[in-house]
Amino acid sequence: MAGYVRDDLPETEVQRQRDLYGPFTQSLRELVDAGLRTLVDDEEIRAAQAEVEAITARLRARQLEGAYGVRFSAEGRGRPWGNTVVGLRNAVAPPLRIEHHPDRDGRVWSDFHLGAVYEGPPGLVHGGVSALLLDQLLGESAGAGGRPGMTATLTLSYRQGTPLGDLRGEAWIERSEDHKTWCRGHLVGPDGVTVEAEGLFILPRWARERIASEQPHPTPRYFE
Amino acid sequence: MAGYVRDDLPETEVQRQRDLYGPFTQSLRELVDAGLRTLVDDEEIRAAQAEVEAITARLRARQLEGAYGVRFSAEGRGRPWGNTVVGLRNAVAPPLRIEHHPDRDGRVWSDFHLGAVYEGPPGLVHGGVSALLLDQLLGESAGAGGRPGMTATLTLSYRQGTPLGDLRGEAWIERSEDHKTWCRGHLVGPDGVTVEAEGLFILPRWARERIASEQPHPTPRYFE
Repeated sequence: MAGYVRDDLPETEVQRQRDLYGPFTQSLRELVDAGLRTLVDDEEIRAAQAEVEAITARLRARQLEGAYGVRFSAEGRGRPWGNTVVGLRNAVAPPLRIEHHPDRDGRVWSDFHLGAVYEGPPGLVHGGVSALLLDQLLGESAGAGGRPGMTATLTLSYRQGTPLGDLRGEAWIERSEDHKTWCRGHLVGPDGVTVEAEGLFILPRWARERIASEQPHPTPRYFE
Repeated sequence: MAGYVRDDLPETEVQRQRDLYGPFTQSLRELVDAGLRTLVDDEEIRAAQAEVEAITARLRARQLEGAYGVRFSAEGRGRPWGNTVVGLRNAVAPPLRIEHHPDRDGRVWSDFHLGAVYEGPPGLVHGGVSALLLDQLLGESAGAGGRPGMTATLTLSYRQGTPLGDLRGEAWIERSEDHKTWCRGHLVGPDGVTVEAEGLFILPRWARERIASEQPHPTPRYFE
């Protein structure tokens, strides 16, 4: 499928790119946070804007035509580096590092920190940001259980406000049937569960056909 | 409520800040997009990172201690400039400009563009980003209809992939009862509706008490 690019990068090159783009993207996250919270005077803001525009022009001298997509190496390991939630190269992503339970298929979790840019009601995580993160967590749960799929339905129940800061997210597979997988998950704050989610994930036909055809081209473990 | 700050800024000062921070934040959005899509060599990336870190340090010389919150002026007009979806000062926000139908309470819409940083599956909007935007749209619909509330439940139904690019979002009030309001909405792409949403919004007790007490302190029109 367009966008799922197999580039066969050796792991050493993947690691080299991680070491280069990881810290660079983190510096952009810091700048975005500082840009929102800064109280410096107008002249300083205008000076910063001019410098930012100059850096952007240099970076755009050579760039991808469209979005990043998902790259795969020979092992079929996906690199969703543009993903809004987990993207190593996406400064909009917190990013979440999602762990997969070694001996329990479909059980995933992530400990993460959400700062000022994820605010909805004052001091609280935007309800839609909680939905965004839970969609990713549930989708990865389906994939971790060997039942990858794209979101068909997602239902969020908000139990209490989710304070900005250190949070935990968890997701697991509830049940599966043919190419459908039902997952559940939640976010946990200092006072317990804040948001609960349940979702139905369906493996798209193109992926089912790819699996059936057993081509060497890897099938994504989940659909970022 | 903590975070809803009434600062009584005159409209002229609000406009001055808009003119200063609007373009500055847009320059940060461009930089984040360029940072994700750039193909320049490693030295250029490292040089950009050093400059970005220097700008961040200058901006942090004076900054808000926590998140931005929501500021109100005398007219009670909210400025959710840190909001993840609509925040004028938040480079993570696209941002959406949400229009309110003049003579139909509760009917809101927004035409917007989503670029590479909102990607989930290759070339498509992250399903969770659609949920994020629809949560904001439905919440504003409730507020526009004079029925503000915080999200209690939100259900998304994904009809087809939402391509990155120019999109439209719409939301309206389905019905309301006491302090509960049920809203519906959807995103529309080049091939029609892509995601449908329905949500229940509830006016929190502290806001109901504020309205009852008729204090001059404005009650937010909606809960960003």
